[in-house]
Amino acid sequence: MLCSRATARHLARYAKRWQHTSARPALNSVTPDDIAHFAQFLPQNAILSTLSPVSVAPAEIEQYNSDWMGKYRGKSTTVLRPHTTEQVSKILKWCHERRIGVVPQGGNTGLVGGSVPIEDELILSLGNMSKVRSFDPVSGALVADAGCILEALTEHIATHDHIMPLDLGAKGSCQIGGNVSTNAGGLRLLRYGSLHGSVLGLEVVLPDGTILDNLSTLRKDNTGYDLKQLFIGAEGTLGVVTGVSILTSAAPRAVNNVILALPRFENVLPLFKSTRRHLSEILSAFEFIDRTAYELAVKHGQGKGLTNEESEGAECFVLLETSGGSKEHDEEKLNALLETLLESDPPLINTGVLSQSPTQFASLWRLREGVTEAVSKEGKAYKYDISIPLASFKDVVDATKEQLRKKGLLHENAVKHVLGYGHVGDGNLHLNIVAAAYTQEIEAALEPFVYELVSSYKGSISAEHGIGAMKTHAIHYSKSAVAVDVMKRIKHLFDPHGIMNPGKVLE
Amino acid sequence: MLCSRATARHLARYAKRWQHTSARPALNSVTPDDIAHFAQFLPQNAILSTLSPVSVAPAEIEQYNSDWMGKYRGKSTTVLRPHTTEQVSKILKWCHERRIGVVPQGGNTGLVGGSVPIEDELILSLGNMSKVRSFDPVSGALVADAGCILEALTEHIATHDHIMPLDLGAKGSCQIGGNVSTNAGGLRLLRYGSLHGSVLGLEVVLPDGTILDNLSTLRKDNTGYDLKQLFIGAEGTLGVVTGVSILTSAAPRAVNNVILALPRFENVLPLFKSTRRHLSEILSAFEFIDRTAYELAVKHGQGKGLTNEESEGAECFVLLETSGGSKEHDEEKLNALLETLLESDPPLINTGVLSQSPTQFASLWRLREGVTEAVSKEGKAYKYDISIPLASFKDVVDATKEQLRKKGLLHENAVKHVLGYGHVGDGNLHLNIVAAAYTQEIEAALEPFVYELVSSYKGSISAEHGIGAMKTHAIHYSKSAVAVDVMKRIKHLFDPHGIMNPGKVLE
Repeated sequence: MLCSRATARHLARYAKRWQHTSARPALNSVTPDDIAHFAQFLPQNAILSTLSPVSVAPAEIEQYNSDWMGKYRGKSTTVLRPHTTEQVSKILKWCHERRIGVVPQGGNTGLVGGSVPIEDELILSLGNMSKVRSFDPVSGALVADAGCILEALTEHIATHDHIMPLDLGAKGSCQIGGNVSTNAGGLRLLRYGSLHGSVLGLEVVLPDGTILDNLSTLRKDNTGYDLKQLFIGAEGTLGVVTGVSILTSAAPRAVNNVILALPRFENVLPLFKSTRRHLSEILSAFEFIDRTAYELAVKHGQGKGLTNEESEGAECFVLLETSGGSKEHDEEKLNALLETLLESDPPLINTGVLSQSPTQFASLWRLREGVTEAVSKEGKAYKYDISIPLASFKDVVDATKEQLRKKGLLHENAVKHVLGYGHVGDGNLHLNIVAAAYTQEIEAALEPFVYELVSSYKGSISAEHGIGAMKTHAIHYSKSAVAVDVMKRIKHLFDPHGIMNPGKVLE
Repeated sequence: MLCSRATARHLARYAKRWQHTSARPALNSVTPDDIAHFAQFLPQNAILSTLSPVSVAPAEIEQYNSDWMGKYRGKSTTVLRPHTTEQVSKILKWCHERRIGVVPQGGNTGLVGGSVPIEDELILSLGNMSKVRSFDPVSGALVADAGCILEALTEHIATHDHIMPLDLGAKGSCQIGGNVSTNAGGLRLLRYGSLHGSVLGLEVVLPDGTILDNLSTLRKDNTGYDLKQLFIGAEGTLGVVTGVSILTSAAPRAVNNVILALPRFENVLPLFKSTRRHLSEILSAFEFIDRTAYELAVKHGQGKGLTNEESEGAECFVLLETSGGSKEHDEEKLNALLETLLESDPPLINTGVLSQSPTQFASLWRLREGVTEAVSKEGKAYKYDISIPLASFKDVVDATKEQLRKKGLLHENAVKHVLGYGHVGDGNLHLNIVAAAYTQEIEAALEPFVYELVSSYKGSISAEHGIGAMKTHAIHYSKSAVAVDVMKRIKHLFDPHGIMNPGKVLE
């Protein structure tokens, strides 16, 4: 999920591309008078500002003003870190009246600049709201402050033998409110579904300070429009999520994984179908790695998974994971699957290796998760996080390769590799183009080519990362003009002064 | 899910209670000129009207004007049955301009009067839009016209070894567009989640005739607000759903069920926790039946499940269902669960019987599903479809009983039984009060008592049936004034003239 430092350096060079200059509603800067107002209801340690009378050094708010990649940088003077929903309400009410832009910020782990200011908006950091409000071990309903760290929640409910319905690389820093606001996907989506299904209720402070308490713990409630859904994935542009009620699941008693070597790319689809039939309810991950990605991971020390002999002649690889109630049963099912795959005529796989220990289990995951880092070590990567129909995966990789070949860019001194990997089970392909160097020529060959290609498959140009500040100009590749117009009308309905996370999601 | 005829008769007697007289926007009646306009783009057989020049007999549109229970009855003159989305668009555009109320109607199987007119609104029947547009056996994404019957879709994908994520008693008549518009729950929710998670995309005609094409087949798409969510459960008040894209699952290879007799009501909760731990991924139903409900079902010939000896001393019963990849594995897990339950100190169950044949499997389900009919045979039933925290199930039944006792109404000539059954796994309790006769006295003892009780637990007064025309006055028991206000603003945004399903959901 997270870009490497190598990528971050590239992006810093291109920094001016990320400067938004599009028309935004006229918003006011924070003044010392505003700080004085906030000090009436916020404790001293909840106000960080370079303005008087607080007057901290700019360095103290630097971490809030820029994202972890160093790709986006705002000019905010003031960070507020409220402790209660009521405080958030008072802050927004004031900012609504004063027309001060507000950027809600969780763990600040996003990849599209959604959680840092574009200009000098006020930053509303949720980190001080980090209490678990309740957990019901019978229903699995967890209610928590928006600022709770995902990993802390995971640990909290692990003591009750439950797991969160989502897991991300950034779990040690990201917050549940941010997860909800960005509709985070992650590694468990195939099994536990999206947050639109698992979030039971939300507490949201609307832009004018009104508190919308919809913090239900019910699985079923058909009383009117399901308002919480609007805030899931709205990236803080419609209000501030301050509390989350989410359905967690009983922890599986056993997990297994297996790596499969496939002779041909075309086998991925029949393999996926066969796997869903054999493993249905225990399948928890189906991750695809093409040969190039596999070799880069091996080359750059991300593990191996298979011997040279086993991997020989394979065009691509699949990592399967199962989560179930019985290790023995799950292994039996996996073995039955492997037999079926090997006995197909011609066989769908060359070989399949089932992990035999927790160490092997972890090492197979490291191979898959290490592709990102390996790619960055290999060269300069152009990364596209796209959703397309499974049947089109190969076509998209091939078409991109062909486009670069046609432009004379497919050689050692320009583009070295075009590769695909990702969450096949979710239709989510990470298309990576690894170049010797970032050049305008390669970029011009790729954009809008890739966006148009994705659009031609009715795909999504952002499967899980969101729009943020980065892709507002490209939303029309995935959404119709009618849809964007409706979104804008909804935005205006909730936030007529345009104070909430200005410049994000919608232009 | 569906009320019996006995209940319907009662409700007809109380018919005036269901006549809405609340203020509605000024809407126009359909005129012969409108019919002439519709005839320009609709085939002859798509227009049913008592107005000239079509002039059918009123009896021909009677089935559209009233619901299946005979509880709600409108006075519409005109039913349009378009074949295409474009035709729906032209109809709405005209009605929007002419300010004619429109009631979208699917299978007309609802229980709250959501799909029949209150006055003489035009009825838009989706039944002629019944094509499967596509099915992808790799991803499981099914795209279908809104008018497709749920059972037809179930059969269509069964040939590809897939199942729909929902199953309802009304499946032979209800339509997928209606399922989505009412956010139907049903029997598979525990396993496959709500439609908010499984619907991938929608095609909706907005009240002004604009077509919102959001018919994605992607599992992941984070490009802006998830607009489709607004129409799931909006009961046709924000637009007309004309196409649905939905994620279906690989069919389980084995199903099992088991009936458990519990010595005490209090054991249901620890039993549910233990079951989730043991069966996690294969648990597909956890249905609760209290002793009274069980005995009524047995008495009225709905099957038995257990011998008298086995059921003796049990305060309540639980029906468990598993759906998994291997009958042998699932039975092993079920047996391990049963052992644990019997070996608890004291045992959580008196006895548990695993069905040994498809006939027994069906008969256990008939016992559970037959409670509704048995209750109606026993007397006059007051029925409440509520969601409350699992821990409060017993308290709600007990408090209701106590309320009736205090009012001197708990005896053979007034209230004979207070009983509870339902989808415990979803937190959805069907609270039934069986009386010798319907009386104002009993009703006054129950309402608003039950609504207030549900509200005190932050529960839902409508877990799965919706609001329709029946409960608009009671929505505030489950939703805050802020939430209702936001809903009204959204309604106004989409439908400023108030033509869509007037008088439904919001007062």
